[in-house]
Amino acid sequence: MRQEDRNNSTSQLPAYLGIPTFMRCPESREFKGVDAAIMGLPFDSGATSYRTGARLGPRAIREASLLLWGYNRSFGIAPLDVLEVVDYGDVVVEPVSLQETEKLIYSEAGSVLSAGVKLISLGGDHSVTLPLLRAHREVFGPVGIVHFDAHVDTENDRVDHGTIFRHAAEEGLIDRKAWVQVGARGPVSYAEEVEDARELGARVFGMDECEDIGTSEVTRLIHETLGSQLVYVSLDIDVVDPAYAPGTGTPEVGGMTSREILKMVRGLRGLNMVGFDVVEVSPSYDHAGITSILAANLVFEFLSLLALGSPG
Amino acid sequence: MRQEDRNNSTSQLPAYLGIPTFMRCPESREFKGVDAAIMGLPFDSGATSYRTGARLGPRAIREASLLLWGYNRSFGIAPLDVLEVVDYGDVVVEPVSLQETEKLIYSEAGSVLSAGVKLISLGGDHSVTLPLLRAHREVFGPVGIVHFDAHVDTENDRVDHGTIFRHAAEEGLIDRKAWVQVGARGPVSYAEEVEDARELGARVFGMDECEDIGTSEVTRLIHETLGSQLVYVSLDIDVVDPAYAPGTGTPEVGGMTSREILKMVRGLRGLNMVGFDVVEVSPSYDHAGITSILAANLVFEFLSLLALGSPG
Amino acid sequence: MRQEDRNNSTSQLPAYLGIPTFMRCPESREFKGVDAAIMGLPFDSGATSYRTGARLGPRAIREASLLLWGYNRSFGIAPLDVLEVVDYGDVVVEPVSLQETEKLIYSEAGSVLSAGVKLISLGGDHSVTLPLLRAHREVFGPVGIVHFDAHVDTENDRVDHGTIFRHAAEEGLIDRKAWVQVGARGPVSYAEEVEDARELGARVFGMDECEDIGTSEVTRLIHETLGSQLVYVSLDIDVVDPAYAPGTGTPEVGGMTSREILKMVRGLRGLNMVGFDVVEVSPSYDHAGITSILAANLVFEFLSLLALGSPG
Amino acid sequence: MRQEDRNNSTSQLPAYLGIPTFMRCPESREFKGVDAAIMGLPFDSGATSYRTGARLGPRAIREASLLLWGYNRSFGIAPLDVLEVVDYGDVVVEPVSLQETEKLIYSEAGSVLSAGVKLISLGGDHSVTLPLLRAHREVFGPVGIVHFDAHVDTENDRVDHGTIFRHAAEEGLIDRKAWVQVGARGPVSYAEEVEDARELGARVFGMDECEDIGTSEVTRLIHETLGSQLVYVSLDIDVVDPAYAPGTGTPEVGGMTSREILKMVRGLRGLNMVGFDVVEVSPSYDHAGITSILAANLVFEFLSLLALGSPG
Amino acid sequence: MRQEDRNNSTSQLPAYLGIPTFMRCPESREFKGVDAAIMGLPFDSGATSYRTGARLGPRAIREASLLLWGYNRSFGIAPLDVLEVVDYGDVVVEPVSLQETEKLIYSEAGSVLSAGVKLISLGGDHSVTLPLLRAHREVFGPVGIVHFDAHVDTENDRVDHGTIFRHAAEEGLIDRKAWVQVGARGPVSYAEEVEDARELGARVFGMDECEDIGTSEVTRLIHETLGSQLVYVSLDIDVVDPAYAPGTGTPEVGGMTSREILKMVRGLRGLNMVGFDVVEVSPSYDHAGITSILAANLVFEFLSLLALGSPG
Amino acid sequence: MRQEDRNNSTSQLPAYLGIPTFMRCPESREFKGVDAAIMGLPFDSGATSYRTGARLGPRAIREASLLLWGYNRSFGIAPLDVLEVVDYGDVVVEPVSLQETEKLIYSEAGSVLSAGVKLISLGGDHSVTLPLLRAHREVFGPVGIVHFDAHVDTENDRVDHGTIFRHAAEEGLIDRKAWVQVGARGPVSYAEEVEDARELGARVFGMDECEDIGTSEVTRLIHETLGSQLVYVSLDIDVVDPAYAPGTGTPEVGGMTSREILKMVRGLRGLNMVGFDVVEVSPSYDHAGITSILAANLVFEFLSLLALGSPG
Repeated sequence: MRQEDRNNSTSQLPAYLGIPTFMRCPESREFKGVDAAIMGLPFDSGATSYRTGARLGPRAIREASLLLWGYNRSFGIAPLDVLEVVDYGDVVVEPVSLQETEKLIYSEAGSVLSAGVKLISLGGDHSVTLPLLRAHREVFGPVGIVHFDAHVDTENDRVDHGTIFRHAAEEGLIDRKAWVQVGARGPVSYAEEVEDARELGARVFGMDECEDIGTSEVTRLIHETLGSQLVYVSLDIDVVDPAYAPGTGTPEVGGMTSREILKMVRGLRGLNMVGFDVVEVSPSYDHAGITSILAANLVFEFLSLLALGSPG
Repeated sequence: MRQEDRNNSTSQLPAYLGIPTFMRCPESREFKGVDAAIMGLPFDSGATSYRTGARLGPRAIREASLLLWGYNRSFGIAPLDVLEVVDYGDVVVEPVSLQETEKLIYSEAGSVLSAGVKLISLGGDHSVTLPLLRAHREVFGPVGIVHFDAHVDTENDRVDHGTIFRHAAEEGLIDRKAWVQVGARGPVSYAEEVEDARELGARVFGMDECEDIGTSEVTRLIHETLGSQLVYVSLDIDVVDPAYAPGTGTPEVGGMTSREILKMVRGLRGLNMVGFDVVEVSPSYDHAGITSILAANLVFEFLSLLALGSPG
Repeated sequence: MRQEDRNNSTSQLPAYLGIPTFMRCPESREFKGVDAAIMGLPFDSGATSYRTGARLGPRAIREASLLLWGYNRSFGIAPLDVLEVVDYGDVVVEPVSLQETEKLIYSEAGSVLSAGVKLISLGGDHSVTLPLLRAHREVFGPVGIVHFDAHVDTENDRVDHGTIFRHAAEEGLIDRKAWVQVGARGPVSYAEEVEDARELGARVFGMDECEDIGTSEVTRLIHETLGSQLVYVSLDIDVVDPAYAPGTGTPEVGGMTSREILKMVRGLRGLNMVGFDVVEVSPSYDHAGITSILAANLVFEFLSLLALGSPG
Repeated sequence: MRQEDRNNSTSQLPAYLGIPTFMRCPESREFKGVDAAIMGLPFDSGATSYRTGARLGPRAIREASLLLWGYNRSFGIAPLDVLEVVDYGDVVVEPVSLQETEKLIYSEAGSVLSAGVKLISLGGDHSVTLPLLRAHREVFGPVGIVHFDAHVDTENDRVDHGTIFRHAAEEGLIDRKAWVQVGARGPVSYAEEVEDARELGARVFGMDECEDIGTSEVTRLIHETLGSQLVYVSLDIDVVDPAYAPGTGTPEVGGMTSREILKMVRGLRGLNMVGFDVVEVSPSYDHAGITSILAANLVFEFLSLLALGSPG
Repeated sequence: MRQEDRNNSTSQLPAYLGIPTFMRCPESREFKGVDAAIMGLPFDSGATSYRTGARLGPRAIREASLLLWGYNRSFGIAPLDVLEVVDYGDVVVEPVSLQETEKLIYSEAGSVLSAGVKLISLGGDHSVTLPLLRAHREVFGPVGIVHFDAHVDTENDRVDHGTIFRHAAEEGLIDRKAWVQVGARGPVSYAEEVEDARELGARVFGMDECEDIGTSEVTRLIHETLGSQLVYVSLDIDVVDPAYAPGTGTPEVGGMTSREILKMVRGLRGLNMVGFDVVEVSPSYDHAGITSILAANLVFEFLSLLALGSPG
Repeated sequence: MRQEDRNNSTSQLPAYLGIPTFMRCPESREFKGVDAAIMGLPFDSGATSYRTGARLGPRAIREASLLLWGYNRSFGIAPLDVLEVVDYGDVVVEPVSLQETEKLIYSEAGSVLSAGVKLISLGGDHSVTLPLLRAHREVFGPVGIVHFDAHVDTENDRVDHGTIFRHAAEEGLIDRKAWVQVGARGPVSYAEEVEDARELGARVFGMDECEDIGTSEVTRLIHETLGSQLVYVSLDIDVVDPAYAPGTGTPEVGGMTSREILKMVRGLRGLNMVGFDVVEVSPSYDHAGITSILAANLVFEFLSLLALGSPG
């Protein structure tokens, strides 16, 4: 877009102004001609480890998204010029029942995906990813996984925000040969926790390994592992250090910087990505919105990755 | 609405959910059949006394409005069942120029009013009221004023958020015989400040007088003063004590409680009200949103007052 | 206790010091010789209206309780000199399932009560009160209710933090002729909400009525209504105005002051009280701990009321 | 000051601007022609009960004082037009030693008072008042006391922020027949705490009594008690409820409103006041500066009271 | 200064004490013998992109400067021993008019510079830099520019905090061959934004390039570009990541660390620097003052750079 | 511990639940069979440089410790499976007297150490380390020191939180040939400050040197310097950058990241460590508890280091 055109663009509105849909995309559940939808999942009753509040994550990320001015210099692309994107709004989740919520998410995500629309979901705690994966499996079959997180989330048999990938693996939602976990660190519940995740199929790049071999090498290994498989990207904001993302439910020190996570997400370019989520943004523990702003930027990178892969 | 019907009502959605237009009214600038519009004025460059930040007031009030469950027990009315209300969104104000902003507000407010739609405006600092009054005068002629504020806002000749009523009076926007100021208090700039306001025409009920004669008597005197004149109600949230409304630009101790301001606003019932604003909500100084929640409730009372006066 | 004795008392420790059990009572689940137990219920997945975070309420109230220096001048009694009190610790609630949590609370509360120990429970959101009432019914039969709250909590048929008293009434946990609701206010979901509560049996003193007839008269009417019935007192901290209690999940403006709620709770003296709770303290929205400090003081009043009624 | 003169007055500068001495008074330790000095006492190592941080009180109160526009409408006086006031700056207290700090305060306060300059001191915790009273006794002999506080501060024999008035009484700094304590409330350490204070000489008006007989009657009784004695006024900001003054070290619920404390302080008019302090403002627990703003307003009332009593 | 001398130095005062001029330099507008002045520009009505509040930046930076103990070990110099520095105080800006404010800043900065005094200015939003550059051009002719910022600030033709360098270039204030921009990143408004800046003359080292070639190499290239030209350094605090500088108006993730910016600023040693500013510190979004403390440290480095270049 | 066993382990409780002793270790002062004790030292009257509040550090670190799930993957060890650890609770320090507090700490630490129990102490400000070192000298003789801190803490002859290592050296508590200081940076009070520390014996690795030679090399040099000497590790949380640890009394920009400090502490493995402390955590300046969480993790690493060195 040339400078003379910009003045008429809604993307030129200042961030303090207007009603915050994601990047001012229209709020709509009509999918004709739509490439991607932003869907909010304001559920936090799956947060079994420490703090709640992630139900207000979708709203905070939408507000922060108004700071995104539209053109991604790293990729040389303005994703909203390439893709038709709508803001789906929020699924009316059921706080008192994880099971009921799973059904609601599964059903609504399914209806979006079956219309041929890609989904970028905003959590909510990480338990929302399990029904999202079920919905993706319906359409795409078992998918490869890139999972950014401070925790492997395969802890035990219970269903909650810390165990979803165990269940996803056991339910056959994941192509276990194309499963990468990045950023695990911190004290764990028992000695074999990471080994158990590996046994389930995950290739785990803990934070220490990321630091030792470098994020570029990890990126190369992700591509090696995922190959051309269809890929779902799930990003728990706690993969980032609490200095950069204080607004989250289970903060874990020793995490990535904002530059590292941005670089790693951009490094996914070339994978065959079909779905995305950003979860565990908990605004009541944020300050100055820095966690939400980072999350919104990561969604912007997801949109850009989708746009790059589209005929656009 | 009977209980069985409520479950299908969007007003039943929990406050944490969804994209926050005011009380989930549709965002629209189509006025056919519309009774009232909520308009955001995210401008704070007129804040000449202390803190800025009121530009984020409209967004915060909208978010807080999702807590308003729709039925006003004090009045026995559900205003959104009676009135067609839209959320106009925000005027694209011009931060670097008060004058340019005045023109923009005047023009857009005018287009709403001339469509026969009543306006409830969300500030922004108090300087936004001057162009609003100009727009109301166009349609209604000089109006009576009920002005709730810790400050008389007639300080001097400059144009800013502390002088608007002097200008409004001098420009003939106000029916000076029907002008009430409620809640003035605190140190003032010079001895005759309140006397000057009175000389301009305002009947001033300072906070001390409200306490001495009681808010019920003040309410009676407001009615006596305003009579059947068309009335514009301008409410600077700093009329309330900082304990109840910390999120404001010029906090003044010794103010009203939330119960007092709610009661006084409800006490306006019976006046011939044609316009409303709530200004000076500054979210970066708020905590737990208590100022925004109070402001949203006051807008809800304004809507109820409108509804009571409508054929509904 | 004479001054010379105070120096050896743990109640003389400054509030910043030590591991916070409630008022430094021993953490114990041994009930021999124990009169009352403080029990934490860190559950907030029943919070269906707005903000979560009440799971951290019990911890915050315990910390604030260290400011309570032990002697209640209003009653002329040091409750911990009269009663043997233990801090039970927290029930290991199940965030992903309200139903499972209800069972856990019911079971553990029951084991305390059946040992002849009175319970003062710290929420958690208000959904915890339903299993508490079930446990009290087991021991005491249907009880009278004094319910302080901004909301009547009888909204509909779903089970969550806003409907518990409907269920309690329908399950026969409440002596419907001895049921008082105090402090209701704010917008409601439908016209008949309060009437429905009254139809169920509650005598509702809304905030407006409290202001009109005065809290002393309301207190008199509470005694009139409850008589000598066994009474359970449930206090949702949002009965207090957000200025005094910002740290709560569904803040409602226009509420009581701290002096009013203290006075009303002290006014319960003489009732035959057998159980208590304070719920909906949500620390991530609090500031300077003022909500928790108020809640801790209210628990202190509950302890004092118990002590006054004990042979001591 | 007429309106035309105001524009040249520094008191017309907006609050966000400039280096904050108290009300923009000159920072000076020259006392020729000076009527009163504002002195900061940034000491908080005497805070033995709960939270520290009051050492940053003087700075916060100075900043908040820039909101004071100079003319006191309640009294019809602009104190800075009547009095020559300087900002003395802070005493270089010694955090690691209460005793050393007492000497430093005593010495510097003494040098101000012996120059015929009245002192208004900004705490710091309440332990600073003891050396201030020693310095005042040197010049004025034993003084009458008006002590606003949630606590009687006569608890025991130790020297700290909770015992100063016991020591002041025992050292003969106080005219025990002219000693009033206002606002005591909350749990106390032992049954006779208030009786002990009364035995020492204090006429105690607890918060309950203030509410029962009314603040006007308390004011009358203060005048009756103090008569024409020289009076020192010590105001612990925790006399106010935490809703109005969260930024303090030992918050006590059930306190005064801002209107009540302002009215009571104004009610001291006519007493023969010779010294003042405001203590226990702890900014790291404040929000939006509301505690500091209230404290600054109370200092403004003190200045006004001094001005009313001056030949001016 | 030897240890024995330190005890008499005001720089030995603890940070919590005293009235905060910058590093306790005298507040003065007398320039005889003065080498440098710190000037506050509390203006934020040019903040057109997101959050206001930078008007309180100068005050917050001054307070944070009290933590600066005077000796710069990196350079082996105590700048205040070498330079005579005064704190000019704040320019009385005009919030309602950017144009009027530009004139005021231009005039006052000019009077300082024409007295042979170097200026270090504290913003305020970035719009203040345009009149500062005009004033510097008067004295020094077109200057070289080192511009640290997350944004290139050449967006379009409007005058505000995001376009100042376009105007500066077009007005001939800048030596376009000696213009370096460091730290640009994040989504931009249109594809050619950075190219446009380059076309205007700026050598842009975006954050990605800084990371790729390393800050040492960027520093080398800055020296290569600037050579011996007179240089003005403008530092928008948002060049730093929000983790390190949350208190700013337009936070941009993926920025520098505090170590990187300190190193880069120290790396300017040897350039012929004649003017400096730090802008966009917005205290109401800061926490624990970490943004202000970083800004104060950067000013300290500027003072050190000045001192190194002075005959001292 | 195998997965099947974990469900019965208290370490499996979620962090939001229960009364916070350190990692749910029993609160006890019985030392039979005990390997290590966690001791709180809630003292902050030695904080002479800027902000107080560290007295609430021990409580905040204990609460944050509930996030520590027990197994240290970096070391392959679950320290609480290897060591018997108790939470000693807090020493009843004396805020108004540093000297009295020193005696209390010395005495209680001595009684723990003489029972053969290792101590990990939680500050409080850094002045608490001096009596801790005295107590360790009694049992172990002069010890080697690894001191992580932004400041060398040897400033002058006064006794406070900024001078303790000067006194420790002069009292013979330190083996001066085995003394390492890591992380010094920022403006200092006088030119020779670091040289003076070196003259006293400290091998100082300032932050600049850490960056230049790398933390791995610094770690090698630490081992070289300390050799097989008994070592006391004192960690002032301000060694970390304020972005990662805002909650501290004297924040210093340009510090370590959380990953660097974790790596350096883990790098101490192999030293003959006998005592540890973490000091200067000041919760009222923290946000989202990120400073406390980091401090708790560092204590967890200390426990792991102790466990590795134990027969287990």
